[in-house]
Amino acid sequence: MATEQITLYTAKVCPWAQRVELAFKETNAKITRYEIDLGNKPSWYPKVNPVTKVPAVAYGGPIVSPEEPSPESVKIAESAVLLEFAADLYPHLLPPSPAERARARFVIDAAATKAIPAFFEFVFRGPGDPEALVTAFDAFQQLLPPEGFAVGNWSIADAAIAPFIGRLELALRNDVGKYAPEDGKKVYAELFQSPRFARLQKYWQDVSSRESWKSTFDEAHILERLRPRLARA
Amino acid sequence: MATEQITLYTAKVCPWAQRVELAFKETNAKITRYEIDLGNKPSWYPKVNPVTKVPAVAYGGPIVSPEEPSPESVKIAESAVLLEFAADLYPHLLPPSPAERARARFVIDAAATKAIPAFFEFVFRGPGDPEALVTAFDAFQQLLPPEGFAVGNWSIADAAIAPFIGRLELALRNDVGKYAPEDGKKVYAELFQSPRFARLQKYWQDVSSRESWKSTFDEAHILERLRPRLARA
Ligand SMILES: N[C@@H](CCC(=O)N[C@@H](CS)C(=O)NCC(=O)O)C(=O)O
Ligand SMILES: N[C@@H](CCC(=O)N[C@@H](CS)C(=O)NCC(=O)O)C(=O)O
Repeated sequence: MATEQITLYTAKVCPWAQRVELAFKETNAKITRYEIDLGNKPSWYPKVNPVTKVPAVAYGGPIVSPEEPSPESVKIAESAVLLEFAADLYPHLLPPSPAERARARFVIDAAATKAIPAFFEFVFRGPGDPEALVTAFDAFQQLLPPEGFAVGNWSIADAAIAPFIGRLELALRNDVGKYAPEDGKKVYAELFQSPRFARLQKYWQDVSSRESWKSTFDEAHILERLRPRLARA
Repeated sequence: MATEQITLYTAKVCPWAQRVELAFKETNAKITRYEIDLGNKPSWYPKVNPVTKVPAVAYGGPIVSPEEPSPESVKIAESAVLLEFAADLYPHLLPPSPAERARARFVIDAAATKAIPAFFEFVFRGPGDPEALVTAFDAFQQLLPPEGFAVGNWSIADAAIAPFIGRLELALRNDVGKYAPEDGKKVYAELFQSPRFARLQKYWQDVSSRESWKSTFDEAHILERLRPRLARA
């Protein structure tokens, strides 16, 4: 349990930041959430994160306004680091045994090196090969146990992948993305409706019906920001 | 402390595998080390790691020959996952406080996303920009505290970067690599001899003088394998 104050600098639009919001929402931590406008970052933000990205945490030190970060707090960046940090403070965010903890981290690593890059490639770079995306999410689906979350109980492994599945689902459903116009609905139907991906669909339903998801995913806000950014030429 | 058996499938030549060897060498774990010939992998190795890479661990289950892995052991792959696994079993491999543990993981993340890719780019891809390499290692040097290891005491953060510094030093010193012929000695002098990199040099001396390093780094063996692979056109 955290006895020190935690200020999380985040942005609703950012999937990496949502990872960390999800993890803390699954605890009883009282954290201070501060939204950074990524299009107009505050001049003091480098004091929190020199590379001015979200997410970042200021941990400990005196209670101060988030806009006047104390030099006495420890500053922590990088979502993968912050997920482990959350699990150090709240051990139920990872399974208890070393072998199961390794499994959770293996899933996080696989998501970071395969499914997530495939998502960015297809939705953000384009025109993108639908088969590559589908193959990557099939590989992810195969990592899932027959039921439950990525390693049984909800864990930081679910926090690591969920923001990307959510944004993929949202983008495809609304035909927003750099892929070919006909591919959006097709890939949406494949991943989110076809029997081949029944396990992924059940997983996604389990993850997205949790309060942690619902309270951190602002669909309209994200869609509004993705539309101009992903407009086709 | 590990009460279960640990079999580590590894290869001297592989920096990712050496990460894990280093971590376990810094403990009193009795592990079984099994060398995989990467040029001629055994037919049973997919039972340990379906993607047939090293490092991989078989953890628990009955005591068996490494060549007949038991279905009852847990199989764990990916060096970053295995470093955390080692630290779960041997907590002294990470600092005790959540903030310092986050720092160690931040260093691991930075190594994985900046210094290590710069090493591969310069030595393995080529012809490579010496300035990019030097800049990446300068950034790494700046992460180091004024003295000691990456986060004070030796930790898995040191295990994560050391195999790459060691191979960089070895390759440059012997002028082996895909970089331009004149760049090897020049970059060697800059990184491993010039005052600008005094902190990195002291760090490297501290890391490489430990028994864990000396007992896991077979310089002649590695050089012999790098030479043909990195021969210039
Ligand atoms: N590797 C970082 C990525 C974070 C990241 O890229 N955040 C983006 C928003 S999604 C950001 O802050 N961008 C602002 C910028 O680059 O200026 C993590 O996992 O935390
Ligand atoms: N991401 C992996 C990389 C491991 C890796 O690439 N290992 C190489 C040797 S250095 C390997 O086993 N290659 C054999 C192959 O790819 O067939 C890790 O960190 O463990």
